[in-house]
Amino acid sequence: MKNKLLCDIGNTTFSFSDGRVLKVDEFDISSIKETVYYVSVNSYWEKRLSMQENWINLRAYVDFDKYYKTMGIDRIMVCEAVNNAVVIDAGSAITVDLIQKGEHRGGYIYPGFRALEKCFKDISPALEVSFNFDIDLDKMPKNTEDALSYGAIAPLLSNLREISEDLPLFLTGGDAKKLLKLIPQASIAEDLVFKGMKKILEEN
Amino acid sequence: MKNKLLCDIGNTTFSFSDGRVLKVDEFDISSIKETVYYVSVNSYWEKRLSMQENWINLRAYVDFDKYYKTMGIDRIMVCEAVNNAVVIDAGSAITVDLIQKGEHRGGYIYPGFRALEKCFKDISPALEVSFNFDIDLDKMPKNTEDALSYGAIAPLLSNLREISEDLPLFLTGGDAKKLLKLIPQASIAEDLVFKGMKKILEEN
Repeated sequence: MKNKLLCDIGNTTFSFSDGRVLKVDEFDISSIKETVYYVSVNSYWEKRLSMQENWINLRAYVDFDKYYKTMGIDRIMVCEAVNNAVVIDAGSAITVDLIQKGEHRGGYIYPGFRALEKCFKDISPALEVSFNFDIDLDKMPKNTEDALSYGAIAPLLSNLREISEDLPLFLTGGDAKKLLKLIPQASIAEDLVFKGMKKILEEN
Repeated sequence: MKNKLLCDIGNTTFSFSDGRVLKVDEFDISSIKETVYYVSVNSYWEKRLSMQENWINLRAYVDFDKYYKTMGIDRIMVCEAVNNAVVIDAGSAITVDLIQKGEHRGGYIYPGFRALEKCFKDISPALEVSFNFDIDLDKMPKNTEDALSYGAIAPLLSNLREISEDLPLFLTGGDAKKLLKLIPQASIAEDLVFKGMKKILEEN
């Protein structure tokens, strides 16, 4: 089991369980001879790999009745990996999923921080900033940089306090560490996608 | 006093206190002969109008020590208009300002809903939706449209509950009615910019 090669295919990278991360534009199928168990949110690559005998798509093993049809397969793997938690996957989008007793109770999508910075800039050049993750969210902002940083971060955190109640908060994704500064009671949980994929493989 | 003509100049329109709303691209200075008291977030027009004798910029009468230097003049007028409230101005951006005993305690900026729809679409074409303002925010979403609508709306509302405490919530701006559906305890307060402008005029 431990030696099985897993791969999480996103819109920009192939992430392998052995640590390799390869860019999708530069990826060469013939470079991988082993059997690979994969999930993909990248429909182009999912289609191409469906013709490769050594690439096994784990989508076929997912019980979609537990989730919803258009939910990203990476989000589903993360949910498979935990039993009771709120999982915040902070990447290009930030997904928030509530899992209780191993069941997905629903979840939502918030823009990623880079996307929010671009969003503010698109509204007006006067709103172009890099968010300050060292901001003191207990004080109402009194300058534009803090007003935008607060506006990007504080509403999400207020909602997490409301929905999480006593559940642990798990942070994953590229911006997990930025959020950890502001949610010290949370913990970083890397590799939740691979953990979910392993569980799916063990069950099938 | 009541007959003075006021004008709130935004990035896209000239809004006059007599109800006229004119597009900035089509605006003809010579069409207005009366004295106009105005505020402008539009720096191009603010500069052009500074050379017109009948256009009086109220920026000169603002006590900026009460606010901060880069705060939008329209937001300042709204704050001048109220004594104790959280004011939510929902337009191309959504500004949230906390005013207690006539003093501005700070505020923040959240993206407007149209900007957020574009923001999600820019992250991935799979995230292109029109937000559903009839969503039941007491239930965690189980489909993509609701997951995005909830993600755009619920965090803002959670934060408003936290910061407003016993203060009344005033909604203004183009999307005020959409928000009123989801914050029934709030009230629509149109013309807060003009109300603030009148107060500034009375005081000077």
